[in-house]
Amino acid sequence: MALVVQKFGGTSVADAERIKNVARRVVDTYRAGNDVVVVVSAMGKATDELIGLATQISDKPHPREMDMLLTAGERISMALVAMAIEDHDVPAVSFTGSQAGILTTSRHGQAEILDIRAFRVRESLDDGKVVIVAGFQGVSPDSKDVTTLGRGGSDATAVALAASLEADLCEIYTDVDGVFTADPRVVPTARKLDELTFEEMLELANSGAGVLMARSVEFGIRYNIPIHVRSSFHDGDGTWVKEETMEEPIIRGITHDDTEAKLTIHGVPDRPGIAAAVFEPLAGTGVNVDMIVQNISSEGKTDISFTVPVTDAPTAIEVAKGVAAEIGASGVDLDSDISKISVVGAGMKAESGVAAKMFRILSDSGINIEMISTSTIRISCVVKGGDTKAAIAALHDGLLEDAS
Amino acid sequence: MALVVQKFGGTSVADAERIKNVARRVVDTYRAGNDVVVVVSAMGKATDELIGLATQISDKPHPREMDMLLTAGERISMALVAMAIEDHDVPAVSFTGSQAGILTTSRHGQAEILDIRAFRVRESLDDGKVVIVAGFQGVSPDSKDVTTLGRGGSDATAVALAASLEADLCEIYTDVDGVFTADPRVVPTARKLDELTFEEMLELANSGAGVLMARSVEFGIRYNIPIHVRSSFHDGDGTWVKEETMEEPIIRGITHDDTEAKLTIHGVPDRPGIAAAVFEPLAGTGVNVDMIVQNISSEGKTDISFTVPVTDAPTAIEVAKGVAAEIGASGVDLDSDISKISVVGAGMKAESGVAAKMFRILSDSGINIEMISTSTIRISCVVKGGDTKAAIAALHDGLLEDAS
Repeated sequence: MALVVQKFGGTSVADAERIKNVARRVVDTYRAGNDVVVVVSAMGKATDELIGLATQISDKPHPREMDMLLTAGERISMALVAMAIEDHDVPAVSFTGSQAGILTTSRHGQAEILDIRAFRVRESLDDGKVVIVAGFQGVSPDSKDVTTLGRGGSDATAVALAASLEADLCEIYTDVDGVFTADPRVVPTARKLDELTFEEMLELANSGAGVLMARSVEFGIRYNIPIHVRSSFHDGDGTWVKEETMEEPIIRGITHDDTEAKLTIHGVPDRPGIAAAVFEPLAGTGVNVDMIVQNISSEGKTDISFTVPVTDAPTAIEVAKGVAAEIGASGVDLDSDISKISVVGAGMKAESGVAAKMFRILSDSGINIEMISTSTIRISCVVKGGDTKAAIAALHDGLLEDAS
Repeated sequence: MALVVQKFGGTSVADAERIKNVARRVVDTYRAGNDVVVVVSAMGKATDELIGLATQISDKPHPREMDMLLTAGERISMALVAMAIEDHDVPAVSFTGSQAGILTTSRHGQAEILDIRAFRVRESLDDGKVVIVAGFQGVSPDSKDVTTLGRGGSDATAVALAASLEADLCEIYTDVDGVFTADPRVVPTARKLDELTFEEMLELANSGAGVLMARSVEFGIRYNIPIHVRSSFHDGDGTWVKEETMEEPIIRGITHDDTEAKLTIHGVPDRPGIAAAVFEPLAGTGVNVDMIVQNISSEGKTDISFTVPVTDAPTAIEVAKGVAAEIGASGVDLDSDISKISVVGAGMKAESGVAAKMFRILSDSGINIEMISTSTIRISCVVKGGDTKAAIAALHDGLLEDAS
């Protein structure tokens, strides 16, 4: 007998039929002798519909009330899932984030989980009940207000709750079969991965793989909770994410991220302290800078390029223009039509030459590299937006189909 | 400066435009120097849609989860109303029933308000905020579970909250202009009443007037909170319900109630204890018996007729058949096609002869009276369902249009 946390996303609970399917799966797990905690997202497009209502009311909805509004979404799905489970004569009880003891910071819309005091969850498990918990939401102990966790919040709820309950396993049910070597919509030959280390999953998530959000992987790492990413439509195994894997191939997968824009400050005087002068004001406005590249200096001048989320670009360019004027740079450019392509694999730690091979493949495909950044297990290149598909296809072909 | 509780029903918050109208009205009251607490129902058909979802999941949805589900409805409307008020730069904060301290019994779907501990509401009023409270819902201190109050629950929340906060006034905004002398859809000449006593409103509500539920009037009586029932579509005065009125005409209004069924147990042996033998088992099943009539005994046998809500009729007939067999009665009849017509007015206390006049009018219209029951300020007659319209029209014409 194990304690299993099962998380079902919005598509898995999109209508009554799918909710009944979820209930059947949960009941099977329960009847096999396990304790089961279920974390659910809002039904299908429910969250988008609530956001739509809010924008009809106000151009800038009050953040506390926005969270109050959005948390109605999971409230509906969790109650329906509980009813569907009860209908199998299996005792079930649903809890909001607040009732489940999910304590967060008070930053509405982007709260962070601080602690989980899952007394009521434990008590109900001890009573033999299946416990359904609303994903994506919590409560701030400071303000006593309801909060939401932002994008990917339900995954974070599931893994954090699994950690807090010392669960044996956290299953993330989704509408795809698992984690793939590349986006199957871009690379038809992409393969499902059987397993991954936490570290690899974290790099994949951070570089554009949408299947599992980075913050939930971080809880997995910290508390060593194995995560099984799998399809809610069939019983086949998905992808296991855990501390160690049987084999560590050089490269696990290739991701791409089209959500960033590149800014370049030209003709920057090359003197100490200039990077701080540029990036401190950006950090002050909350803009999330990803890659930074500084060119080799020529005649005492250099160029500094960096990427930011497209949504932050308007703020970033305003700040950058102010900085440029202050430090005597010649100007600022914005390029929103870029894509970041990343190659990820724990095997890179031991094996050298992956970067060189990556650059060669892109070059042979006639694709220009605009920026490069690396970690121990990842190499990322920024290319023009129009080159995304060709770059991924060539890299998958050259780096992964050889290896398989 | 006064403390005003304003309650808006589902039609008043049915879409974004109407919610903005509600916000304008609230902001006007606030800017006139008042403290304002707003109680809202779920938007338009939201509750029905949630019930529809539940019935797709289960034939008999789990009551606790049903309440968890339904309370999402007011959560959505209260957050949207708060946003709309904030958009006028007026500080606002929304609270669920639980956050507002509405403590109830733990009977899901039909909980009763036990106490209101409105600490957070008071605190926010002291901070100069408009407070929006979800109607229809509360929390059981025993089970810590969220509950709903059943039909008319939002009115009850509003008046009970007004009582707890010692408000100066409770305004019930609705889609009609106030309380009428009869249902205007049945009697085109029905007039809006300017004022009513609590006692009269209670009798009207109990005998079929849908505009204000009896349980909210009871809170008004107990704590002497004047209630103003008025239209949410214009600023005109509606109907004031209060302890005493300027004049007390003999008759205020005529109501009808088509939601009851009549059961008759025939050939009941007429001996002491027989009524208890019939009605104790019914009370035990929670069936709500309204009118009871026992015929004059003939040859040691009598007939007992009583009315129950149509929804309780299947249970009631089953129990009645069992009782009939036990006590040696000859049989049980059910008639669902009946209507209860009531004449209500505090002036009846002093003036006699209203009942006789009522029976004469019905008789002159060829309408047969099947059952009669009276209180100090009400006379009710059960007639055939098909006679409803004619009975009301004749009574309104004979009793109210003379008086006006």
